[in-house]
Amino acid sequence: MENYRELSRKKLTQRGVKIEDIAVLVYDLQKMYYNDLKIDRCIEAINLVLDKRETAFAVLTGIELDIAAENKSLNEINDIIESDYSLYGIDEILALSIVNVHGSIALTNFGFLDKTKPGIIGKLEEDGKKDGVCHTFLDDIVCAIASSAASRIAHDRENEKTS
Amino acid sequence: MENYRELSRKKLTQRGVKIEDIAVLVYDLQKMYYNDLKIDRCIEAINLVLDKRETAFAVLTGIELDIAAENKSLNEINDIIESDYSLYGIDEILALSIVNVHGSIALTNFGFLDKTKPGIIGKLEEDGKKDGVCHTFLDDIVCAIASSAASRIAHDRENEKTS
Amino acid sequence: MENYRELSRKKLTQRGVKIEDIAVLVYDLQKMYYNDLKIDRCIEAINLVLDKRETAFAVLTGIELDIAAENKSLNEINDIIESDYSLYGIDEILALSIVNVHGSIALTNFGFLDKTKPGIIGKLEEDGKKDGVCHTFLDDIVCAIASSAASRIAHDRENEKTS
Amino acid sequence: MENYRELSRKKLTQRGVKIEDIAVLVYDLQKMYYNDLKIDRCIEAINLVLDKRETAFAVLTGIELDIAAENKSLNEINDIIESDYSLYGIDEILALSIVNVHGSIALTNFGFLDKTKPGIIGKLEEDGKKDGVCHTFLDDIVCAIASSAASRIAHDRENEKTS
Repeated sequence: MENYRELSRKKLTQRGVKIEDIAVLVYDLQKMYYNDLKIDRCIEAINLVLDKRETAFAVLTGIELDIAAENKSLNEINDIIESDYSLYGIDEILALSIVNVHGSIALTNFGFLDKTKPGIIGKLEEDGKKDGVCHTFLDDIVCAIASSAASRIAHDRENEKTS
Repeated sequence: MENYRELSRKKLTQRGVKIEDIAVLVYDLQKMYYNDLKIDRCIEAINLVLDKRETAFAVLTGIELDIAAENKSLNEINDIIESDYSLYGIDEILALSIVNVHGSIALTNFGFLDKTKPGIIGKLEEDGKKDGVCHTFLDDIVCAIASSAASRIAHDRENEKTS
Repeated sequence: MENYRELSRKKLTQRGVKIEDIAVLVYDLQKMYYNDLKIDRCIEAINLVLDKRETAFAVLTGIELDIAAENKSLNEINDIIESDYSLYGIDEILALSIVNVHGSIALTNFGFLDKTKPGIIGKLEEDGKKDGVCHTFLDDIVCAIASSAASRIAHDRENEKTS
Repeated sequence: MENYRELSRKKLTQRGVKIEDIAVLVYDLQKMYYNDLKIDRCIEAINLVLDKRETAFAVLTGIELDIAAENKSLNEINDIIESDYSLYGIDEILALSIVNVHGSIALTNFGFLDKTKPGIIGKLEEDGKKDGVCHTFLDDIVCAIASSAASRIAHDRENEKTS
């Protein structure tokens, strides 16, 4: 399993996603609640999300689907995935496997990021429109990692307060 | 069942939620995709959402929980619900029973509305802070109805295009 | 929060659910995969599930709804809840707040327990048919705790193997 | 869209799944509730499930993933998918995109089928262990279609009663 965790981090980097880019999203989601929030805390939370089995498998599966679509090897469903068709819905569902295990704060933040597409998410979506590039699954996965990390911070902070 | 559908509409009105207020949310969620969208179409979509069994039961259960919290009759969990504690999470879960049956567009819109709280949703939340008023479940239920109606419009429009 | 965790345990006991009864369900779900599984390991896993914020809030909310239905204080929705109407669905949704955070093994086991109703789950359902007793939410919550504990054991065992 | 609905039916047939095989599962799930249930009614309900956009896309995506795994073209995640690793979880998540839109009865039946593997589901799983055959996604998709059709029957029957 250690192996898959490392692999999923490597694949994210290969596909142009840096943990620092996700950390900015997490920071922006949580800064209004914690005056003293540091970017390092956001990176720490992202790493905890990436350590989850659910995350590793969702990242690796989603990226393979994007790559397969770039290679036109998905037969009848290739166009739907490559064009990021708005009613496809399987990209969001795959991302939910990460979001679900992080509770309801992760879920509402996921919807917010998916709709407003700040920072790296918007960039991934734009790049995905270029010829030969498909980010249909990747942008939702990044939304899921960021929103789950935000949820982690909210939960951990509350535990610190009450303990 | 007809009975429960009518009851859930009546209860929403009694608790200060007008279908027209929800329609404005739906319109704002969908106007960027359809130039010719009319508010009547939004109301029609909301009515289809309200006709679902899942919606009727979620509305009636959520409102009873809010009222019970106002009446201080929920024992140890009363404070958590009355204060709309951010990590409570059961309010979002109850709303998901509506959102889930309307697909992934409903889900992302739900998160967006829950986080940005436009129009009637923000108003419900503000009013819920007054003494003796609890809208912990109601505001999430309104988010769920609006986001589900938005999803309905997106799906129906696509069907019209392709048929 | 510590407080709510203790309260949810106390309430389960008051409503007739012993951790030992849940442990038998967990044991039966997992014994085919681990020859050396001990009931103590099942109890340990249940305690980890009960320590989660999501569990505490779902337990406390569900039990209050059952009690409110016994007291006939839920107005128009009281009959639906008291009679454990099969298409109500909100009882399963509430339980999902526990199941979701424990991953997909929790989910499939939840469905299995909810449908086959072994041990304490069947007993709760039978008792819930008596006059003045409502277990509509409680039986689903017990399904959720047992299936989540089973998922925990599966995940932890795998971690032990690979570390 | 019509196109995708037809394609998903064709692909199911190509991968060895007949609607009649799914109908037997639906019949067995619902026969205890309706004395007069006919297999034709089950087939009709399955067709309504297959007409949903969510179903078509889940079927087509899941089958492509199975085929890609058979072709060893999924890189680092290929072994996990090909071996139907029990903690993978993405197969169940994909199937949930079908189950979720059919409500909570679909969800509990899904867990039950996934755990007990009657009829065609067990057969698919067994065949999937053969060299060069992968049914990791397909068996969960069939569980999802059957459980969703069962839920449809339960809901429609209730509507007939109350109208």
